[in-house]
Amino acid sequence: MPVAQLDRVAAYEAEGWRFKSSRARQDGPVIRQRTRPPLRTPQPASSSPLELPLEAGTITHDVFMREALKEALAAYEDNEVPVGAVIVHENRVIARAHNQRELLKDPTAHAEMIAITQAAAALNNWRLIGAAIYVTLEPCAMCAGAMVLARIGRLVYGAADPKAGACGTLYNIVQDARLNHQIDIVQGVLAGDCAQLLREFFAERRESP
Amino acid sequence: MPVAQLDRVAAYEAEGWRFKSSRARQDGPVIRQRTRPPLRTPQPASSSPLELPLEAGTITHDVFMREALKEALAAYEDNEVPVGAVIVHENRVIARAHNQRELLKDPTAHAEMIAITQAAAALNNWRLIGAAIYVTLEPCAMCAGAMVLARIGRLVYGAADPKAGACGTLYNIVQDARLNHQIDIVQGVLAGDCAQLLREFFAERRESP
Repeated sequence: MPVAQLDRVAAYEAEGWRFKSSRARQDGPVIRQRTRPPLRTPQPASSSPLELPLEAGTITHDVFMREALKEALAAYEDNEVPVGAVIVHENRVIARAHNQRELLKDPTAHAEMIAITQAAAALNNWRLIGAAIYVTLEPCAMCAGAMVLARIGRLVYGAADPKAGACGTLYNIVQDARLNHQIDIVQGVLAGDCAQLLREFFAERRESP
Repeated sequence: MPVAQLDRVAAYEAEGWRFKSSRARQDGPVIRQRTRPPLRTPQPASSSPLELPLEAGTITHDVFMREALKEALAAYEDNEVPVGAVIVHENRVIARAHNQRELLKDPTAHAEMIAITQAAAALNNWRLIGAAIYVTLEPCAMCAGAMVLARIGRLVYGAADPKAGACGTLYNIVQDARLNHQIDIVQGVLAGDCAQLLREFFAERRESP
């Protein structure tokens, strides 16, 4: 299992109250270096991801999705369903989080929710106008609804979720013209890696229940 | 404006991090007495509301909805959109919260979300099986999705929300057979009082922008 051998992302407090982990990291860039690349997809030879413009297309999306994947890996290693998210504003990662449902014993502690709370704190504003959220898995109804409430500008996700996806699969809440905000969607970014991590997690769980 | 003259519900910290207010109050019944009744609906002459069985029907629903209305009033007095929620488990209020979006500058800080986090802490479990949530306004997609994730048993709400309601109006997320949990709905409980509070809030806002 190559995933389990990776360096641990010591990004979160090991315990604590719900969304304690949503404390914004406002003291500079938050992307940490790993000694080994996190997944099979090679790192691009480009300069720092934080310098790339959001409009640069697929390569930029890959870069930020890779950061979301690092968060998903951290969830995996904590025995949480491996979903990760980052929020980007003005080409800077202002929030990063992973699913912490089991740790926090909180059904609302999805990666996206923690990241949204974190990003609002970073901007000191509940409106995340102009922000883009990168998530490894298609958001559920709760998270999709939160993105609309937060006025997020763009949603980029990896794998589709046939069971609960609310951004194109079961619903498309983020593009419902009846609501007071709509969000651009880019889907399928690094979808293979994102889905693979989930498959490995559930396969391992079935083996050792 | 009779609402503004009511006693203040000093239930929440005046400031603090998101969902600081979700700290569960586990030290006994949490319903406090007011010196004056909160709304136009008279208090029932019955014994303590916490003693009434959940199955008793409308009167019980009224009692718990009145507690949710107290929370909505607290939001009103804090200049937040007045929505309140309580969660009941084994005939006991285990969580109570109101909308704190502006105070916490957090788009996810709806009454229901804070109450769900609070209830999960009270039960030390993210599954709120057998719990009922009372909300003054029909939940949005975010909150409806959270209720499904939390496996809440019953949703009782007051006023319908024509703009964003996701429990019968725009969607019915809590009763979608494609999701892995469905929730009983009782709607229209004290709907007049619940809607009136919202109307007064928005009318006042229009007058003094």
